[in-house]
Amino acid sequence: MSVPRGLYAIVDPDACRGRDALEVAAAILRGGAAMLQLRMKHGSDTARLELARALASACRAQGVPFIVDDRLDIALLAKADGVHVGQDDLPVALLSQQPLAAGLSLGVSTHTLDQVRIAEAEGAHLLGFGPVFPTRSKRDADDIVGLELLSEAASATELPVVAIGGLDAERAPLARDAGAAMVACISAICGADDPEASARAIHLAAGGEPC
Amino acid sequence: MSVPRGLYAIVDPDACRGRDALEVAAAILRGGAAMLQLRMKHGSDTARLELARALASACRAQGVPFIVDDRLDIALLAKADGVHVGQDDLPVALLSQQPLAAGLSLGVSTHTLDQVRIAEAEGAHLLGFGPVFPTRSKRDADDIVGLELLSEAASATELPVVAIGGLDAERAPLARDAGAAMVACISAICGADDPEASARAIHLAAGGEPC
Repeated sequence: MSVPRGLYAIVDPDACRGRDALEVAAAILRGGAAMLQLRMKHGSDTARLELARALASACRAQGVPFIVDDRLDIALLAKADGVHVGQDDLPVALLSQQPLAAGLSLGVSTHTLDQVRIAEAEGAHLLGFGPVFPTRSKRDADDIVGLELLSEAASATELPVVAIGGLDAERAPLARDAGAAMVACISAICGADDPEASARAIHLAAGGEPC
Repeated sequence: MSVPRGLYAIVDPDACRGRDALEVAAAILRGGAAMLQLRMKHGSDTARLELARALASACRAQGVPFIVDDRLDIALLAKADGVHVGQDDLPVALLSQQPLAAGLSLGVSTHTLDQVRIAEAEGAHLLGFGPVFPTRSKRDADDIVGLELLSEAASATELPVVAIGGLDAERAPLARDAGAAMVACISAICGADDPEASARAIHLAAGGEPC
């Protein structure tokens, strides 16, 4: 999978302010997104799989890679393009060696330069790095890394780095200039009054191709 | 996998009263268990996978089938013998058709005769049925089904039925007499002062072979 640039849209039903997550995602895709990830920490697996399959289908129709957060089984059952794991999730060192996960893009959340180097060595294909700015989406968030460390992270790896944490259309160019291939957003798009307009603004500000 | 009789031990770290879940499981296996399931609703996936792999290894050494609750990916990565799903989890109708899950024993929690018939038609290999008695292990538990409905459930399907809910050594023979192939316990073994003695008593009372 070639790595696109612009908005890495994270769709979290909890961040959609009561609106249907699939409709919010459709609006985001209309606005433009280089990649789309489903992040669903609550709800049943029946609902999780149903939403994942619907999002996979919507993304496929737009040629946008679809990623599932945390759950390898949901990613496989929904025929997603990849799975994204954090530092306490299924270990990328294991996934990258698993025939089961062959063909999936493996993303890893990193928060330090050591984690960046380790994830690359362990076979990750793409790295999240942050939180670059304070964020509303994650409680118990890690320490803010800032733009300078983002720049060091992007220089420390051959992998595409996705900046995450408190990003919006105003800050997206700063992350891009620091070397981020993409800019990940949750609240700034899912929680926006107009998710389509918000996605478009961030996608373009992050250096994405017009949709 | 032939279906054994006796105790279907469910190991839940939350029910182990602060003791190491792997040590509690080892004691249960010494006492005797026809099957062992990992049920872990909290904690990270790194911890979940680590415990699943350790339990898989301990069960294999005893020739006891090892099942993972809810998570197909953890079951596959830990090389478990099966996966167990509830009514809101990954659908058995899907799993039974999935090459991914081929070779895994598929268990389904059921609470009504309709659910029993549907799960069998959808390709389940084993059915949980309950709660037979009031239980401490599950909040928001379903309605108590009782021994009479357990007996009807066991008659309504060709599949082995595992009685669950409030079972202990005293009640295990009642479930066995009602047609249950096995008796599932969480608190009565994981929370026992002596999990080995408790497992042995229930396993034998449920009609299991001496270990």
